[in-house]
Amino acid sequence: MNLALSDIAELVGGRLAGDGKVAITGAAILRDAQPGDLTLVDKPRLLKELASCQASAVLVPQEIEVGNIPSVAVRNVHASFARIVEHFHPQHRSRDLGISGDAYISRSAKIANGATVYAGATIGDDVTVGEGCVIHGGVRLLAGCQLGRNVTIFPNAVLYEDTIVGNNVIIHAGAVIGAYGFGYETSGGRHIRSAQLGHVEIGDDVEIGACTTIDRGTYGPTRIGEGTKIDNLVMIAHNCSIGRHNLLCSQVGIAGSCTTGDYVVMAGQVGLRDHISVGNQAVLGAKAGVMNDIPEGSVYVGIPATPEREQRLKQVAWSKLPEMRKEFLALQKQMASLLERLERADQEVT
Amino acid sequence: MNLALSDIAELVGGRLAGDGKVAITGAAILRDAQPGDLTLVDKPRLLKELASCQASAVLVPQEIEVGNIPSVAVRNVHASFARIVEHFHPQHRSRDLGISGDAYISRSAKIANGATVYAGATIGDDVTVGEGCVIHGGVRLLAGCQLGRNVTIFPNAVLYEDTIVGNNVIIHAGAVIGAYGFGYETSGGRHIRSAQLGHVEIGDDVEIGACTTIDRGTYGPTRIGEGTKIDNLVMIAHNCSIGRHNLLCSQVGIAGSCTTGDYVVMAGQVGLRDHISVGNQAVLGAKAGVMNDIPEGSVYVGIPATPEREQRLKQVAWSKLPEMRKEFLALQKQMASLLERLERADQEVT
Amino acid sequence: MNLALSDIAELVGGRLAGDGKVAITGAAILRDAQPGDLTLVDKPRLLKELASCQASAVLVPQEIEVGNIPSVAVRNVHASFARIVEHFHPQHRSRDLGISGDAYISRSAKIANGATVYAGATIGDDVTVGEGCVIHGGVRLLAGCQLGRNVTIFPNAVLYEDTIVGNNVIIHAGAVIGAYGFGYETSGGRHIRSAQLGHVEIGDDVEIGACTTIDRGTYGPTRIGEGTKIDNLVMIAHNCSIGRHNLLCSQVGIAGSCTTGDYVVMAGQVGLRDHISVGNQAVLGAKAGVMNDIPEGSVYVGIPATPEREQRLKQVAWSKLPEMRKEFLALQKQMASLLERLERADQEVT
Repeated sequence: MNLALSDIAELVGGRLAGDGKVAITGAAILRDAQPGDLTLVDKPRLLKELASCQASAVLVPQEIEVGNIPSVAVRNVHASFARIVEHFHPQHRSRDLGISGDAYISRSAKIANGATVYAGATIGDDVTVGEGCVIHGGVRLLAGCQLGRNVTIFPNAVLYEDTIVGNNVIIHAGAVIGAYGFGYETSGGRHIRSAQLGHVEIGDDVEIGACTTIDRGTYGPTRIGEGTKIDNLVMIAHNCSIGRHNLLCSQVGIAGSCTTGDYVVMAGQVGLRDHISVGNQAVLGAKAGVMNDIPEGSVYVGIPATPEREQRLKQVAWSKLPEMRKEFLALQKQMASLLERLERADQEVT
Repeated sequence: MNLALSDIAELVGGRLAGDGKVAITGAAILRDAQPGDLTLVDKPRLLKELASCQASAVLVPQEIEVGNIPSVAVRNVHASFARIVEHFHPQHRSRDLGISGDAYISRSAKIANGATVYAGATIGDDVTVGEGCVIHGGVRLLAGCQLGRNVTIFPNAVLYEDTIVGNNVIIHAGAVIGAYGFGYETSGGRHIRSAQLGHVEIGDDVEIGACTTIDRGTYGPTRIGEGTKIDNLVMIAHNCSIGRHNLLCSQVGIAGSCTTGDYVVMAGQVGLRDHISVGNQAVLGAKAGVMNDIPEGSVYVGIPATPEREQRLKQVAWSKLPEMRKEFLALQKQMASLLERLERADQEVT
Repeated sequence: MNLALSDIAELVGGRLAGDGKVAITGAAILRDAQPGDLTLVDKPRLLKELASCQASAVLVPQEIEVGNIPSVAVRNVHASFARIVEHFHPQHRSRDLGISGDAYISRSAKIANGATVYAGATIGDDVTVGEGCVIHGGVRLLAGCQLGRNVTIFPNAVLYEDTIVGNNVIIHAGAVIGAYGFGYETSGGRHIRSAQLGHVEIGDDVEIGACTTIDRGTYGPTRIGEGTKIDNLVMIAHNCSIGRHNLLCSQVGIAGSCTTGDYVVMAGQVGLRDHISVGNQAVLGAKAGVMNDIPEGSVYVGIPATPEREQRLKQVAWSKLPEMRKEFLALQKQMASLLERLERADQEVT
C-alpha cells in the first residue's frame, strides 16, 4: 500500500514540489505524523508546527508555499487528504446484508427493498422503513414510526411510537427520540404526568448525536427542521420547534416549548428556559443561560445571557473588580479625611 | 373520524358556543393548528394568539369567553383536550404479548403472570418481575434485580445487579441504573477504584428520564424517594439519598453522598458538589452551582448558589457595573483635582 | 450469616475493643445503620455522627479511639469493611458462560479462549477480543474493533468501527465510543459533514462511565491515555488527546482537538472550548468554562476560567458588590455636595 509521493500527487491531481520518489507509508495530522507519513497543513499559521513535525511530506492548498520538505499542492486540501487517508486505512464496507433473520420485525411493518436491518434490531407494528435505510443492531423502532429514504440509525438508538423521520437522516448510537415530556401537575402532593399524545418529527438531512434525547410533544409534534445538526448528549424537551440548519453543540439543553429560527448556532452546554424564542441566525456562546427571547442575528453570551458586547464590558469591569474595590475603599477614606479637614477648617473660621 | 363540533361537545361533556355543525378534522395546539382543527386555550393571555390562529374551533375552560370562533367550554380543559386528541390520533395499544420466546431469561428469574417481556430483553439470574410490568426490547436486568408491580422499562435501559424498583415506576430508554460510583484512591500514581458493593433503590411512582444515570452506593444503597420525577440526562452519583416527590430537570448533576428532602425542585443543568444536604421544598434555579448546604424552603440561584434575593441585587449591581466603573473613574479624577486645588489653596494661604 | 463481633475481628485481622459477643447481622454506613449493624468511621470528625447512629458496633482505623460502643480497629478500614459487607451481601458471581450461542458474531471475528460473550451482543467483522474479556448483552462492537485482555464492556455500550481498547479497561452501559465528530463546513446554506476516517484509541486501565460519548478523530485517533478515569455523561469530541491518569467528572464537555497532560482533574460540568491545551496536574473547578490554555499545575475556576486565587478575590468583591454600589452612590452624592459647597465658598469670597 506504500506509495511514492509522485503517485500521491497523481492520485489527487496535485502539483508536486520536491522529491517525488520519497516513500509514503501513511497519512496523519501534524500532532500525530511520524517519519514516512504525509501530513496536512490547511492554514499558513500551521507552517510553524510543520517545522517541528517528523512527517516526510505535506499536503497543502495551492496558495501555501512550503520550503523544507516535499509537498503536494491541491485545490481542496481536505477532500484530497481524506482520499489519501482512505488509501492507507480503507473503510469497512458493510456487506449487503439485507434484512437479518435475527431482527425482531412485526408482520405489519413495511420495509423497502434495499434497506438493511441488522440482527437484534426491533421494527414495531406499522413501522415503515424507506429505501436505502440502514438499521443497526439493537435499534428499537416502536409502533408507527415512519422513516424516509437513506436513513441510518446506529446501534441501540430508540425511537418511541410514531416518530417521523425525513430522508438522509443520521441518528447516532444511544439517542432516544420521543420519550415522555417532563411535564407534571402537582395535585394532593403528587406529581401527575401531563398527556403524552404527541410525537417527534425530524426533517430531511438532520444528524442527531450519540445519547441525545428529544422528547415527544404533549398533544402534537416536537419538530427538528431540515438540515439541522445536533451533537451528542443534547436535550430537546417536549413541544420544541427547532428551525432549519441549526447547529446545536454538545450538552445543550432546551426546555419545553422553545422555538428557534433558521441557522441558529448554540455552543456547548448552553441552556434555554422554557417558552423561549430564538431568532434566525442568532448565536449563543458556550454555557449561556437564556432567560429571555433572543433577537434575530444577535450574539448572546453569559448567565443570564446578554448581548456579547455588553457582556464583554461587564467582563472587563468584573476582571478589574478586586482592584476597583481597593481603590474605592481608598477613595472613601480620602473623602472622609477631606470632610473632616473641611469641618476643622470651618470650626477654625468661626 | 371527522366530528361535528357538537359531537365533540358531547364527547367531553362541554358547553357549546357558536356553530355546532362546523366539521372538525383534527386537534392541535395554537402554534400548529390548521383550518379544520380544534385548538386549545387554557389561559386568558393566549386569546391574543387565538386571534391569529387558523383553527376552526377552540376548547376553553369555563371561565374564558371566546367571541369570534365556535368554542366548547369544559371544566378540565387538559383532560378533555387529551380525549379529543386521542380520538383523532388513537394511541398504539400494545397487544398482550406475554413473555417473548426471543427474550434471554435466566432459569432462576421469577416473572409474575401478566407481565410483558419483549424480544431481545435480558432477565438475569434471580431477578423478580412483578405483575403488570412491561420490559421492552434490549432492556438488561442484571442478576438480583427486584421489580415491583406495574413497572415499565423502555427499550435499552440497563439495571445493574441488585437494583430494587418499587411499584408503578417508569424508566425511560437508555437510562443506566447502578453503574459503578466514581470513587478512587490514588496510590503510587494510579487511581484505585473504591468498593462497589452497593446498589440502587427506587421508590414507588418514580419516573426516570432517558439516558439518565444513577450510580450504585459504595457499601449500601443510593436511594430515590417515592414519587420523585427525574428528567433526561441527569446524573445522580453514588451514595446519594434523594427524597420524596422531588422534581429534577434535565442535565442536573448531583455528586456523591448528597441528600435532599421532600418536594425539592432543581431546574435544568444545576450542579451539586459532593456531601451537600438540601432541605425540604428548596428550589434551585437553572444552572445553579451548589457548594454549601441549602436550607429548607429556600430558593437559591447562581454560581456559587446564593439566596435568590441576594443574587438579584448582585445581578442589578453587575448589570450596572460597566457604568459604575466609568462613574467611579470620574469620581477618582474629581477627588484628585479637588485635593490638588485644596493643596494649592493651602499654599496660597501660607 | 450472622457473626459475633469477635468473629468479624478475626475475619479482618482487627483489634477488638468492648463486648465481642454482640451479634452482628449486617454492615451499613453511618447514614443507614440499624441496630445489629456494624458501621464504619474512617475519619475522627465522624465520631460525632456515630453518637447518634443506632449501629451495634463500629469498624475504625487503628488511630481512632471509640468509647461508647464495641469496635474493631484495623489498618486498612475500607478494604476490611468491604470484606465484611461482602460477607453479608455476597456479590453475584457470573458463571463461566463462555460465548453465548445467542450472540451475533461475525465469522471473521477472533475471540480468545476464556472470554465471555453474553446473549444479544454483536461482534462485527474482523473484531478481536482478548483473553478474559466480558462482553455483556446488547454491546455492539462494529467492524475492526480490537480489545486487549480483561476488558469488561457493560450492556448496550457501542463501539464504532476500528475502536482500539487496551488491557483492563471497563466501559459502562450505554457509553458510545467512536461516533462521528461534530464538524461541518457550511456551503450553499447547507452544513457538509467533514471526513470521519479516524477512530478512538483507549489506553490500558481506563474506565469510561455510563452514557459517556467519545467521538472518533477526523483523519486519525481520538486518544484516551492510560489509567484515565471518566465518569458518566461526559463528552469528549473528535481529535482530542487526553493524557494519562486524568480524572474527568460527570457531565464534563471537551470540544474538538483539545489536549490534556497527565494527572489532570476536571470537576463536574466543566466545559472546554476547542483546541485548548491543559498542562500536567492542572485542576479545573466545577462548572469552569475554559477559553484559554491552562498552565501545568494550576487550579482554574469560574466562567471564563481564571486562576482560583484571582477568582476568590473576584468572588469576594462580587459578594460585596450590592453594598459597594450603595456606598458608591453615597460617595458620589458627598462629592457633589462638597463641590457645590466649595463653589458657594468661592462665590462668597469673590
